[in-house]
Amino acid sequence: MGAAGEHDDAAERGTVVTPSAELPPLGAEERAALGRIGERWREPRDPDELPVDPTLGRSGRPPRPTRFGRLVPIEMFTVEEPGELVATEPAHLPGSRTGRLLTRARRTLFGPPLSSASVLYERMRKLVALPVLSSDLLSSVAYGPEAMLAVLVLAGSAALGLSLPLAALLVVLMVAVGLSYRQTIPAYPHGAGSYIVAGDNLGRTPGLAAAAGLMLDYVLTVSVSVAAGVHAVTSALPGLTPLTVPLGVLVIAVLLAGNLRGVRTAGNLFVLPTYAFVVAILVVLVVGYARAAGRGFAPVSPPPVPAAEGLGLLLVLRAFSSGAVSMTGIEAVSNAVPAFRPTEWRNARTTLGWMVVMLVTLFAGLVGLIHLDGLVPRPGETLLSQLGRVTFPTGPWYAILQATTALILLLAANTAFNDFPRLLFFMARDGHTPRRFLHMGDRLAFSNGLVALSLTAAVVFVAFGGHTERLIPLYAVGVFLAFTLSQAGMVVHWRRHRGPGWHRRLALNAVGATLSALVLLTAAVAKFSEGAWVVVVAVPLLVLLFRRIHRHYAMLHRALALHPPAPPGPAGSVEREELPQEVRHLVVVPVARLNRASLRALAYAASLGQPTLAVHIAPEEVEADRFREQWQAWGDHLRLETIVSPYRAVIGPLAHYLEALHTTRPELTLTVIVPEVVLRSRWHRPLHSRVEQRLRAALRALPGVVVTTVPVHVAE
Amino acid sequence: MGAAGEHDDAAERGTVVTPSAELPPLGAEERAALGRIGERWREPRDPDELPVDPTLGRSGRPPRPTRFGRLVPIEMFTVEEPGELVATEPAHLPGSRTGRLLTRARRTLFGPPLSSASVLYERMRKLVALPVLSSDLLSSVAYGPEAMLAVLVLAGSAALGLSLPLAALLVVLMVAVGLSYRQTIPAYPHGAGSYIVAGDNLGRTPGLAAAAGLMLDYVLTVSVSVAAGVHAVTSALPGLTPLTVPLGVLVIAVLLAGNLRGVRTAGNLFVLPTYAFVVAILVVLVVGYARAAGRGFAPVSPPPVPAAEGLGLLLVLRAFSSGAVSMTGIEAVSNAVPAFRPTEWRNARTTLGWMVVMLVTLFAGLVGLIHLDGLVPRPGETLLSQLGRVTFPTGPWYAILQATTALILLLAANTAFNDFPRLLFFMARDGHTPRRFLHMGDRLAFSNGLVALSLTAAVVFVAFGGHTERLIPLYAVGVFLAFTLSQAGMVVHWRRHRGPGWHRRLALNAVGATLSALVLLTAAVAKFSEGAWVVVVAVPLLVLLFRRIHRHYAMLHRALALHPPAPPGPAGSVEREELPQEVRHLVVVPVARLNRASLRALAYAASLGQPTLAVHIAPEEVEADRFREQWQAWGDHLRLETIVSPYRAVIGPLAHYLEALHTTRPELTLTVIVPEVVLRSRWHRPLHSRVEQRLRAALRALPGVVVTTVPVHVAE
Repeated sequence: MGAAGEHDDAAERGTVVTPSAELPPLGAEERAALGRIGERWREPRDPDELPVDPTLGRSGRPPRPTRFGRLVPIEMFTVEEPGELVATEPAHLPGSRTGRLLTRARRTLFGPPLSSASVLYERMRKLVALPVLSSDLLSSVAYGPEAMLAVLVLAGSAALGLSLPLAALLVVLMVAVGLSYRQTIPAYPHGAGSYIVAGDNLGRTPGLAAAAGLMLDYVLTVSVSVAAGVHAVTSALPGLTPLTVPLGVLVIAVLLAGNLRGVRTAGNLFVLPTYAFVVAILVVLVVGYARAAGRGFAPVSPPPVPAAEGLGLLLVLRAFSSGAVSMTGIEAVSNAVPAFRPTEWRNARTTLGWMVVMLVTLFAGLVGLIHLDGLVPRPGETLLSQLGRVTFPTGPWYAILQATTALILLLAANTAFNDFPRLLFFMARDGHTPRRFLHMGDRLAFSNGLVALSLTAAVVFVAFGGHTERLIPLYAVGVFLAFTLSQAGMVVHWRRHRGPGWHRRLALNAVGATLSALVLLTAAVAKFSEGAWVVVVAVPLLVLLFRRIHRHYAMLHRALALHPPAPPGPAGSVEREELPQEVRHLVVVPVARLNRASLRALAYAASLGQPTLAVHIAPEEVEADRFREQWQAWGDHLRLETIVSPYRAVIGPLAHYLEALHTTRPELTLTVIVPEVVLRSRWHRPLHSRVEQRLRAALRALPGVVVTTVPVHVAE
Repeated sequence: MGAAGEHDDAAERGTVVTPSAELPPLGAEERAALGRIGERWREPRDPDELPVDPTLGRSGRPPRPTRFGRLVPIEMFTVEEPGELVATEPAHLPGSRTGRLLTRARRTLFGPPLSSASVLYERMRKLVALPVLSSDLLSSVAYGPEAMLAVLVLAGSAALGLSLPLAALLVVLMVAVGLSYRQTIPAYPHGAGSYIVAGDNLGRTPGLAAAAGLMLDYVLTVSVSVAAGVHAVTSALPGLTPLTVPLGVLVIAVLLAGNLRGVRTAGNLFVLPTYAFVVAILVVLVVGYARAAGRGFAPVSPPPVPAAEGLGLLLVLRAFSSGAVSMTGIEAVSNAVPAFRPTEWRNARTTLGWMVVMLVTLFAGLVGLIHLDGLVPRPGETLLSQLGRVTFPTGPWYAILQATTALILLLAANTAFNDFPRLLFFMARDGHTPRRFLHMGDRLAFSNGLVALSLTAAVVFVAFGGHTERLIPLYAVGVFLAFTLSQAGMVVHWRRHRGPGWHRRLALNAVGATLSALVLLTAAVAKFSEGAWVVVVAVPLLVLLFRRIHRHYAMLHRALALHPPAPPGPAGSVEREELPQEVRHLVVVPVARLNRASLRALAYAASLGQPTLAVHIAPEEVEADRFREQWQAWGDHLRLETIVSPYRAVIGPLAHYLEALHTTRPELTLTVIVPEVVLRSRWHRPLHSRVEQRLRAALRALPGVVVTTVPVHVAE
């Protein structure tokens, strides 16, 4: 499966996770443009030799820590090769004391920073990946069958018999979707998420729609799983019920901290509970079926329940779509392919296979056993709990089953912590989300994505007061949108690539896509007024947002590109100033009063050897005269222009004066030199009016005005 | 009164309100220092003629508005004299569209800006000043007598007879304090507040203590008056009671807006209600005494009230100090002397005389009439209301009395809006409060002080839920602290200056100071646990804060002064780097990738004609090689140093590298040239990581590192 050609195709697009936004290799056009620009370079009039050794006199020896553990800055760099230094870990500490303290605290919490070189070691073995990525999927089994039966029972207990054919249909759906993703992983070995598959085959907007659906679902996975898990805890300890919201936020914070420490560590935390849950359910199934075998597999008849609705097609479809929430999380592996150890796609495919087998076993086993035992959904107690009591009337087994169920629900949220930042990373690579999501933190985790997920999920959790039942209707619409688009994308993929057996594969994906689309439609319609409308509204808005972000980055890329891009369409009109051949200067020094700070700025200005003008803003005529007197006493070395500002503002008139100068001679580059008194203590900053910052903000909008800040340090 | 010598003394200290912090005249020492520094000036190597006409080619003609009402920047300036431009009003508008919109909105609300030249016209006539400055003082009459009687009645109705001697004592106190301030105003014609008088004669700390007391009292004046006024309104319209807090905040906001429009306009708003209140009380007195004359001034015996406490000295003192709240606000005129029309001190003194006469008349008249009518404080109804009902059993007069009382209570808060910013201004001139309180806004009001008062008062109001009775115990301690210190200061003043009749004046001030001190002690002790402790704790803390602020400004002044100050004491060790004789440069250009932005920064760097080094930070070896390849393609015009940052940070290693360069050659000035892509829309800013700002923040702490921002504008 997965022809070699497909691998090359993926490698060409270069969708490999790298520690940072990588520099693209140089194309021929760019090379030529760079050469042309370089030819126009004018050597500076006075190109002195460098007055300093840029290698810092380092000769490859490693840095030695000084007495107080702080390195002299020179010691923070080692020489790798000529013209190249390597920064050591201490060089990443901020310079300020507060900054260093904060960084130390962060490192104590999340571990020391990891070098980019160790990125490979942060990958997961299959036996670790399985629990990490499957907790979401498998935990759905705890509420999926019940969600389906709770709809069927509305038509009376007789309708419960439909659960077996529906379950069979869902198993077909699971297998179909599972096989589809199995086919997808080798075709997209560097990340086979719905965003990439749909975008690649159906176009950008369907890809973004799939991504939006998945993003909403990841957020809801965290909120719902945490809500259900906390509810399980508060059911056991009712005294904690008023603390539902803080407890949930605490759980989200702990998950965030664990994931900020890095993928592997987080994985280790989750191995045991997931396996324990699977074993617990398997024990229930073995004991239950053994008991049923003892009575010749004769089903117990369920207690009679009166019908509240007629048994129509809509009800059956609703039951089907409700049962389908058992499948949320099946896409986890495909998004996380690059987190596997090499060969990534093979290990991911194997893990996916195990997961689907486990899902089908648990799901089908549970539905069958519930049918055999004649159990009916009740408001007070979950079906799984009822099943546990029937299976283990005595002994600690029932308690163990409930505890592992509660635990895996909490851990299911972790799947989203793996996938959400990765999805944002892929989208940021294409310019659909802010670039900061490309950045890997100290611990090689996508810190910004993790924080974004935690914040959003916490807000949703708090907004819904931590009530699971209010969150559920929003759930599963997004993920089935992604399933549908991804599988429809694979249909197009097979039509295009026509490898061996493509007919069979296309048919399989077409069936999966159709079934997913049916579930999507049913879920969206049946649950619309209960909350699904939020998702229906949010997805298009998110798609619009992603497209706007993309347009901005594309505009910026064109504006900064060196070689002229293809002629812009009617929509994009980008300002293309030519790069200046030669810079002609006018240096302007605003002077409020003559003191050490302003004289330092004047000295700096003079040392540039360019035409220089000093400007003084005076609130009154009298003050202007007094300042000119000082200027004369100093020696009147520079041309001084005084501006009287009768309305007492400083920034406005100065900015407009500079703009006026620029208007008269637009080809000049105005360099405004501002002294900035630097205070050590931040407590003293409110005592100063930050004229320098406000001036810079006002001048920012003027083209051709360069602002230079000359710091004047005051020891306290 | 007030010898000519005293006027000169005040003029020398220069305590005139000017539109902005004024430039001090040049002393001989400074002149010499400036000359010495000027002699060391080195003419730049290549002092071209200025390539631009700094007068913008203006020839004194006035600016013409352009078609869209926006002036071309050149049109915003007129020529006053050679080398001096005058900014017109449009030159104060911010350049950005949002900024202009905000400014327009502000001007619609608060009026067009006033030029500094119109500062004199914003002064008050006496007949306007009287209501503006006396509403606080006169409104106290509405609750002062009742506060005194409410304490006396604790010892039974027999003790109520003591109200007459206590009132006589209070009248003596009022006259004494009034005469004291009458004496003070000509002695300090440019502002005779307790802060200046106490500071001038007793030393800095007593002056600051007086200021702290006054500041707290101004804040409480606003909170208490607004609370009482809103309560009067909600008593009339009980449906508004739940809105007490928002209503009070609204009133404070309206007062703020009115005062931001400027003093005179605000004064006009307050003329009518104050005079109406005075007239209403006078009518009550005339009618009441006429009725009493009808029965031969025989007092009605009060209804018997059982004694709750014995009639001890402490009780009498408490009654006295409670009655003394009638005097809060008497200091208003002395602080506001410069807001009067010329001759300021004479008009202020006359106004103060009127105010004291009115206060004594109303206070003594009310206490006497209450005694004659045998009225007793009751929880449900104020004494003034009881008196109104007795005097006007029928007709609309009672309603008018209550309405004007409610209105003047709301307006009393306005006195604080006049005095608080002025006090902050005087303190800021001495460096005891942040310099921003020196600044006059568009409308020649001390906007920052007004906003500070409104915010603090609103916070206090909200914190106390708008309950008058909870706020009252905090009140009056601060103001009697100021009275005591001010009059004690005048005692010292007379001892020093010994003008004609100084013995009599000294004695008068000594009596006033002693009485004020007694009231202060009684109030602080008797009301300590009811809330006065807040003031007792806050005053020393504020004094400490003011002293710390002063120390900071003094340190900064010494550090930036041109001529060496007196040798610093053991406490102050100020870094005194010599001004650089010549600046030696190294220009450093951090380059992330070669695009139009970085090439513009490189071109700018080269045009400076100084030794230049380019630095590239690469997250990985591979990336560094790729960048070097681009650098070669461009032509390798500058020395390039690559720093591999295996932990992916950019700012930290770059800052440490620059620090290391600085360490190896501390005499070099490093100029770091950073391109900054300027986006027009602020919505796009979150899409960028603001590396430029973060780099500047990191480099701020390094001495000898100058940061230059080269803007690259991108049209959208």
